[in-house]
Parts: sequence; C-alpha cells; structure tokens
Amino acid sequence: MNEVTDLSYALDTFYFLICGALVMWMAAGFSMLEAGMVRSKNTAEILTKNIALFSIACTMYLLVGYYLMYSSGEGGFLPSLGFLIGAENSVDAVLNGGEDAPYYSMRADFFFQVVFVATSMSIVSGAVAERMKLWAFLAFAVVMTGFIYPVSGYWTWGGGWLDAVGFSDYAGSGIVHMAGAAAALAGVLVLGPRKGKYGKDGAIHAIPGANMPLATLGTFILWLGWFGFNGGSELKMSDVASANNVAQVFVNTNAATAGGVLAALVLAKLWFRKADLTMALNGALAGLVTITAGPAAPSALAATLIGAVGGLLVVVSIVTLDKLKLDDPVGAISVHGVVGIWGLLAVPLFDDVSLAAQLIGIVGIFAWVFLASLVVWLVLKAIMGIRVSEEEEYEGVDIAECGLEAYPEFSVKK
Amino acid sequence: MNEVTDLSYALDTFYFLICGALVMWMAAGFSMLEAGMVRSKNTAEILTKNIALFSIACTMYLLVGYYLMYSSGEGGFLPSLGFLIGAENSVDAVLNGGEDAPYYSMRADFFFQVVFVATSMSIVSGAVAERMKLWAFLAFAVVMTGFIYPVSGYWTWGGGWLDAVGFSDYAGSGIVHMAGAAAALAGVLVLGPRKGKYGKDGAIHAIPGANMPLATLGTFILWLGWFGFNGGSELKMSDVASANNVAQVFVNTNAATAGGVLAALVLAKLWFRKADLTMALNGALAGLVTITAGPAAPSALAATLIGAVGGLLVVVSIVTLDKLKLDDPVGAISVHGVVGIWGLLAVPLFDDVSLAAQLIGIVGIFAWVFLASLVVWLVLKAIMGIRVSEEEEYEGVDIAECGLEAYPEFSVKK
Amino acid sequence: MNEVTDLSYALDTFYFLICGALVMWMAAGFSMLEAGMVRSKNTAEILTKNIALFSIACTMYLLVGYYLMYSSGEGGFLPSLGFLIGAENSVDAVLNGGEDAPYYSMRADFFFQVVFVATSMSIVSGAVAERMKLWAFLAFAVVMTGFIYPVSGYWTWGGGWLDAVGFSDYAGSGIVHMAGAAAALAGVLVLGPRKGKYGKDGAIHAIPGANMPLATLGTFILWLGWFGFNGGSELKMSDVASANNVAQVFVNTNAATAGGVLAALVLAKLWFRKADLTMALNGALAGLVTITAGPAAPSALAATLIGAVGGLLVVVSIVTLDKLKLDDPVGAISVHGVVGIWGLLAVPLFDDVSLAAQLIGIVGIFAWVFLASLVVWLVLKAIMGIRVSEEEEYEGVDIAECGLEAYPEFSVKK
Repeated sequence: MNEVTDLSYALDTFYFLICGALVMWMAAGFSMLEAGMVRSKNTAEILTKNIALFSIACTMYLLVGYYLMYSSGEGGFLPSLGFLIGAENSVDAVLNGGEDAPYYSMRADFFFQVVFVATSMSIVSGAVAERMKLWAFLAFAVVMTGFIYPVSGYWTWGGGWLDAVGFSDYAGSGIVHMAGAAAALAGVLVLGPRKGKYGKDGAIHAIPGANMPLATLGTFILWLGWFGFNGGSELKMSDVASANNVAQVFVNTNAATAGGVLAALVLAKLWFRKADLTMALNGALAGLVTITAGPAAPSALAATLIGAVGGLLVVVSIVTLDKLKLDDPVGAISVHGVVGIWGLLAVPLFDDVSLAAQLIGIVGIFAWVFLASLVVWLVLKAIMGIRVSEEEEYEGVDIAECGLEAYPEFSVKK
Repeated sequence: MNEVTDLSYALDTFYFLICGALVMWMAAGFSMLEAGMVRSKNTAEILTKNIALFSIACTMYLLVGYYLMYSSGEGGFLPSLGFLIGAENSVDAVLNGGEDAPYYSMRADFFFQVVFVATSMSIVSGAVAERMKLWAFLAFAVVMTGFIYPVSGYWTWGGGWLDAVGFSDYAGSGIVHMAGAAAALAGVLVLGPRKGKYGKDGAIHAIPGANMPLATLGTFILWLGWFGFNGGSELKMSDVASANNVAQVFVNTNAATAGGVLAALVLAKLWFRKADLTMALNGALAGLVTITAGPAAPSALAATLIGAVGGLLVVVSIVTLDKLKLDDPVGAISVHGVVGIWGLLAVPLFDDVSLAAQLIGIVGIFAWVFLASLVVWLVLKAIMGIRVSEEEEYEGVDIAECGLEAYPEFSVKK
Repeated sequence: MNEVTDLSYALDTFYFLICGALVMWMAAGFSMLEAGMVRSKNTAEILTKNIALFSIACTMYLLVGYYLMYSSGEGGFLPSLGFLIGAENSVDAVLNGGEDAPYYSMRADFFFQVVFVATSMSIVSGAVAERMKLWAFLAFAVVMTGFIYPVSGYWTWGGGWLDAVGFSDYAGSGIVHMAGAAAALAGVLVLGPRKGKYGKDGAIHAIPGANMPLATLGTFILWLGWFGFNGGSELKMSDVASANNVAQVFVNTNAATAGGVLAALVLAKLWFRKADLTMALNGALAGLVTITAGPAAPSALAATLIGAVGGLLVVVSIVTLDKLKLDDPVGAISVHGVVGIWGLLAVPLFDDVSLAAQLIGIVGIFAWVFLASLVVWLVLKAIMGIRVSEEEEYEGVDIAECGLEAYPEFSVKK
C-alpha cells in the first residue's frame, strides 16, 4: 500500500519527466524550423548539426555542466568544478526526511535541466546556418553546454550572485534564450553574412527558406514543447497552490503565443502588405520567449498583450538587424535575444521584482555569454577556421560536410 | 507534507493539462494534413490560416467564448453575455470546501476547453482551401470561435436545453466536429468549387495533394492528440472508476481508428482497385470522429466495428459529395460532418441514451451552426468578398496573400 | 474524497496511458523515417503500409495476441489460445483486494502492450521497402502481430520458459526489436535486393533516401516516443523506489541515444570522411535499442558508453550487411537486430543476470521469429507472390499499389 509521501514524490517526479520529455521534443522543433528556413542545399547539414548538438549538450552537461550549475556555493560568481550528477535520493531519505526531505527524484531534476541547456544551444545553430563549418560549430557546442551556460545558469538557478540580487527569470527568457542569442550574435559577428545576402550597393537580398511546412511544423513543435519548458519550471505540482500555478502557466504560455502570432501577422500585413507566414511563425516564438520570464503572475489577458508586444518587437527587430547587416537566417537573435530582454523587463509589471535587478541580470548574463562566446569563436577561427570555403558555400554545405543531399531527387529551380 | 486532497487536485489538474496539450497538438495535425492535401501553390497560405485561426480561437474564447459557454443559466437557448474566464479556485475553497469543493484548477479547465474550439475551427479551413481570401476567413474565425461555437457548446456542455433533453456527446462528435463541418459546408456553398475541379461536361477532375508524407504526419498527429481529446473528456482521473473509464477511452479511441483505417483501405481497394492512401488517412480520422461521441461505453471490439463503419461511410461520403459538386479539398465535411452524425447515432447502441435526444441534438446543432455561419459568410461576401480573383487562384494564393512560396526552390511539373 | 488507494491506482493508470500514447507516437516516427529513406516513387506506399500495419497490429492483438501473450500458464513453450482482452478490474477488487489487489487498469495495460507489438511490426516494413507487394506485407502483419510476436512475448513477459530461465529484457531489445529484425531478415532473404542495388561486378550502389528532414523528424519522434517505451516498462510509478527507477530510465535512455549519435557520427567522419547524417540518425536509434534491454541499472555515464558502442556497431553492421548483399533500405536489421543483441548482452554488465540466460533468450527468440517468419513469407510467396513486377518496381510502387504519387507536383531529377 502506498503512502501519501510516496504518491506525492511519484507525482512530482512524473510531472518533471513529462515536462522534460516535452522540452526534449523542442529539439525536433528547432531542427524542423531551421531545416525549413534554410536553402535546400544546406538542409542536411543543419539537421546533422541539430541532432549532434543535442547529443553533445546531453553528454557535456552530464559530465560537468550540471555539477557546475547546481553544486556550487551560494551567492558567488565562480562555480566549483566537479563532475557527474551525484546520487539519487534514497527511499529512506524521502520517507523519513521530515520537512527537508527531497520531494522528487534527482534524476528527474537532471533530465529536466539537461534538455534546457540543449535548447539554449539549439538557438545558436540557426543564426550561423549556411556558412559555418560543422565541426567548428560542434566544438563550440562542447564549451557552451559544458561551461558557458552552466556558469551563468549557476548565477541564478544555482543560487549564485544574480539570485542574491533578486533577478527573476521563471523559466529562462534570459538564462536560456537570451544566452543562446548572445552566443549566436558573437558567432554571427565573427562569421560574417552569407555570400549574396547583402549587395555592394547596400541592397538586402531576401533568401527564402526552402520548406515552409517544415518551418511551421517546427514552430508548432516548439509551441507544444514550451508547455513543458514553462509548465515544468514551477518545479512542483503536488499541492493546490502549485497546481493552480502550473495551470496558469499553461494558459498564459498559450495566450502569449496567440498574441504574438496575431500582432506579428497584422503588423506584417500593414507594413509589407502581405500576411507573411514567416513573421507569423516568428510572432509565435516571440510570444513564447516573452512569457517565459514570468508566466505565472499575469492574467491570461495580460499575457496575451505582453506576447503581442513581443510579436511586434520581433518583426521590427528582424528588419533592423537586416539593415545592420547582421545575417541571421532564422531570426534567432531577434526571437530569443531582443524579445528575451523584453520578457525580462516585463516581469516587474506583474510581480514583486525590481527593474534594477532585471537590468543587472540582463547585462550580466549577456556580457558573460557574449564575451566568453566571442573568445571561443575567435580561438576556433584561429585554430581550425569556422567558415566553409566560398566554393563550398556556393555548392551548399550538405555535400561538403555531410556527403549527401537533403532532397537528392527533387529538381531545383535555376 | 501533502494531504490527500492536495494530491487528488494536483493529479486531476495535471491530467487536464496534459490532455489539453495533446489537443493543442492537433492544431499541428490539421496544419500538416491540410498542407499535404492542397497544391504546393496554396500551401503557405493554408499554413498561415491554421496558425492564425488557432491564435484567434484562443483569444476570442478567452475574451468572450468561455464565459458564454460555461457561465450561463441552466436549460436555456440563449447564453448570457460576459467576458473573460473568472477567478481561479482559492486553496482554502479546495481544502475546506467539503463535498462540493472544486477538484481541479479552473485554469486547467479553460486550457482544455480552449483547444477544443480551436479544433472545431481547424475543420473549416481545409474545406474552403485554395480559393478563399485569407482575411475573410480570419474574420469568420472571430465570429465562429467567439460566438457561434460557444452558443451550441452551451446548449450541452454548459447545461443548456440540449443537456436537459438528454443529448449525449462525450467529447464532441457533434459539438466540435459536426459543428465545424456545418460551418465548412455553409462556406463551401457560398464559395463554390475550385476552378477546374468540375468540367462543363460533368466530369470530376481529381486534384491531388502535393505532399503525402505531410498529410500522413498530420493524421498521426491527430491520432495522438485525440487521446487527449477523448481521454480528457472523462473530466476526472483520480479514482478507480474514473481511471478505468479513461483507460477504456484510450483503448477504444485507438481501436476505432484502426477499424476505420482498415475498412476504408479495403473498400478503396475493392472499389477503386487501389490501396488509396488518402482514403486510409480519412478512414483513420473517421474512426476517431465516430468514437468521440461515446468512447467509454463500448467494448474494444465494438469500438473497432463502429470505427470501421465510420471508415466505410467516409469513403462513400467523399465520393458522393464530389458527385454533388461540393468541393471540399480535404474531405472535412465527410470526415467531421457525415461521420460525426454516425458517431452520435451510435451512442444509443451502447449507452442509456435515447435516439430521439440524439436526433434533436444533431438537428439543433447543425441548424444553428449552419445557418449562423451562412449568414456570416454572406455578410462577409457582401462586405469584403470571400473569394480570391481568378488570376490569384490560378497563380496560387501563396503569392497573392502571403507574398512567399511554400517550396520556393522546388521545380513544379508542368 | 479520494482515498490513497484510488490515487495510487489513478496515478499508475495515467502513467501507463501517457507512456502508451508516447509509444503509439513511434508509429509516426517509423513512418516518417521510412518515408524519408526511400525514393520518392515508393513513398506513398510505405506510408500506406505503416498506417495499415499499425491498424492490423492493434486489431489482431486485441482479437488474439494479448490473450496468447498474457493469459497462458507459467514456464511453458506453447501459449493457450484465447480471444479478446478480458474484464476490467472492478472498483471493489481494487479497494478491498488487500495486498494482491490490482494497482492499475487492465485496459491501460492492454493499451501499453498493444503499441509494443505495433512497434515490432513497424521494424519489418522498412527492411522490405521499395519492392514488396503491399497486400502480401499486410498478410504477414496479420500473422506476425496475432501469433508470432505473442508467442515469444509470452515466453518472457507472459511468464513462459524464458522467464523461468532468467532471461532479462527490460523493455524489449530482444522481444520487440530483435524480433522485428528477425522477421525482416527472413523477408529480405526471400525477397532479394532491389533492382540496381548490387551490380553484376559486385559493385554496391547507394540509393539515397529522398527526404532527409522527414528521416530526421522520424528519428526525433522515435527518440521522444522511446521515453514511453522504456519509461513505462518499469510498470509502476507510485512509490519512491519506482519513481526513482523511472527517472533513471528516462536519463539513461537519453544518455545512450546521445552516445549513439556521437559515436556513429565520429566513426562516419573518420571512416567515410563525411559527417553522414543517416549514420547519425542510425546512431541515435542504435543508442535507443541498446539501452532498452536494461535501462534502469547503469549509471548515466555507463549508459552513454554502451549507447556509444551501439552507435559504432550499427555503422559497421550496415556496411557489412551491404557487403553481404542483404538489401535493407533503412538499416532496420542492423539497428534493431544486431544492436538489439548487443543490448541484451550488455545487461549482465550492470545487473544480476547471467550471460547464459541472455544467450538462450537471444537464440530462442531469434530462432522462433526467424523460422516462423520464413515459413510465412514462403507460403505467401507461393500463394500470392510477395514481390512486385520489375516494371512496377521501376515505375515505383506508389502508382502500382496506391494509384497516387507522394509528391505529384515536384519534378524529379533524371
């Protein structure tokens, strides 16, 4: 016969595992989104990059990242170095541990956290698509998922100095999304734009993605997975107050996404005279990123509105970055970076959080991830090069890197 | 330490949220199904339509629909007008509310209901594909999800007159699926068939869908999501009898779908001499729609058989509607309307429900949704027009409406 | 008010149902993987095969398979013949049954088991792709899912002689995956290779799959679904020890897959000089199959390493089978058969299981499934033929079998 403590522990563990599985599914979402937004000649490589980066993230976080992020002291800048993921809770510790007994499995906690670092890394791959060397990218992934992300992750979620300052980031608009965007921005700056993207006369040439159904599928996958991403970040399900919060998070995550879609679509229609599907998709992602910083506090109507602001912002940001000749094929820097910052700044509107703490967190995380990434990209550039040759870029990186084509039978328009 | 009431509330809330997330996933299913079943030149637009209609449904149902459907009086025809979704249960009300205390989060209830209205609206988009103006469609979506669906939804699930009559529709073969089909039928009648579909000599020209893997993926997504659609409609998980019912619903939903696939495939083989994949897919959807009206009562074998009848019916209906020159590119009216009616009529075979009540419900819901939709379509036609120009239809609505192509690189056969 | 027993029963039932839904989703994974790995002219047929085999599996297992597998005596070779799935637990039996009371719904048990037999059957379809007659394949599916799989399934999971011997196969590396591969191998031997695959001079011609994003999507779907496949095989969630085990299974399933991807990708890079995406995908599947035999016992680091061995093995095996002129378009025999055996042999490294018992199980299951399948394939060959005509194979089986094309609008390179 089960006891109440058994059941509560089992329910919270199950909740973590299911939410983690939904976040793992986001890896498929990023893969499909990016595969749809690049040209057909670079599709197989970006798929390879996505499945490999996920695998690297899982392995590096297991080896060092999780320890760095969650086993270091309180209030600090530098985490302690250590390895592997520690012991599981004993049954005895749970049942006889009293008030301080662990209330869910440590393995479930690891599973939920490991898929977050993979998400952050996935953001990078889209921005540097169609021109970066595969193995340089994977080398970057090793450092990002093993060290860079865990350090700033420790600052807030591991109890470091940003947590002490009062920085609030419920599920990671900053810690996960802006961090990924900061690493991507550093990569884009070192790498430069794709050949043919910007003309000598200042012209900006649109390079349409090859497969819109894939990009849409990827967006829906991310939408679904995000219920785990935000919903699981309450970290507890098993009492009335927690259950209510998780339900509010689901509702608000959905509402903000809907708001983001509609705002971006209407703005695109008014601005470009067309209902641009890619902007609707980016609007969805912007709504998701926006609400991630604080999905439990606002009402559903407020969530819709702050998601809508995210949807407007992403359209403006994508156009602006293109004018600045920052070539980001999937709009990742706008979606996860610019909108992530907006999400963090919106938290004080609904929650007892200071704007100053949010600004400190934004600057701190951005500075760390951007600068550390910049160093790594520059080192990789010096050691092995990070950009494929002009000829490889022209022919497509699929043949050069992967030795196969994504759509070998389909004729391509000339 | 959690109490039993906490745990029960948390489990039922979690069950609602997970089932709701599965139903949300059906939006991706409809998108992929429809994107696979239309021509490549109309694919980006139908993707845009799907993500936008989902967002409109979520927003309109939040603003007015949910209140209309669930906060009105008992036994009536007309719901009360009201806004937003009310307050969440307080912890105190749950723990100290006695027998009548709420047993799951109101936010989880909203989340589960909001994805249902989106499902109903998704049904419409496939039937009017390849020739309707995007913004006219979205305007219809505002009215359908904010008013038309909530009114007939109120009649049964909100405690209105159909509930009083004894009409039984477990998860919505009528309230969701036939309602969507009725709105679609009204739209198709006002809109007329696609150019080239029916020859002057009475010939019917098949217009094959451009991407069968997408259509198949969409069907599998719907199959998976339907476990949430039907499984969540038990509305409770936390005791032995409810858990047994939910399990029976999962088994029967799966069995009916399998029956629908096999019956449709065999019939297609016998009738057309070919194992027509699109009929197998429609058979799956027919099995799902059939069992939705009463998935808890039959045995798994009976569920297989009633799903198989649905599978036969959908093939006959698709052929018949084509002969009637009702042009429905994805077969939505057959799958959700004709088969939905069959599902409702099958309920009295296994449950203590009167055939008369089922007939009243079918006529009532169909008449309301069809007539209200017809008025809206006609008003939209008068105000803004609902059909694209002949030239736009010939060139494809993707360029006209969205300003981009779904597969810009792939050559198309001439 | 719910009692603790109610809640425990509900939680375990819900856990089974959600895990089962994830395994059902694997059917979509196999469909997309196989649709991506064959040529475009054979894509609609393999989609038809996949949705039909799933439906056949669900129906046959309902009619006879489940009874054969789980209602027969202890320790035997031959199961008892019987039909349908028996009665659900009564509420009274659960609440007042004492120590031996059932702790979850029998319907949920059926649902979880039925999706396993469909998985095993899905493995076969890829290996015989592009040349087998559709209806011969479906006839085989009837026998495989109704009889062949349930018999060897009974031997271990139904309490037959392999269980008595001490054979250990947690979630079915052998019972599900190697069994599917054995049936596939028999089919491939009877069927012969595709035209043009092997030249007269001994040359091996690569036949690239038509759609790499689909194949990648399929792999990610399988990865996600496998959390249900392995995670549900603990068969209990509702106490601390079980919850810890399920969490360990999730972590190890993910870790082994990551290890498989990285090992296969690096080996492909070193061996073929290219980061072959298809090998990365096969590496993921190999990691999944490897860990399936014993995912609860190893540490996450050990799981990564044994998955990595699986990833190396699958590359070597695919190359070797090609040299042996065993034409398996998707590598199913290597992924599920060769790697499945490795997974079973790795169990004694971490668990108190004898290598002898594992070897007996491998030989016993392989011999039964291979020989029984061989007989069925030969009988089918004699009765109806199992191979399409040369002309049909050249033109593609889509037109011949299904009367439609998967991508009717896209031009194909000549």
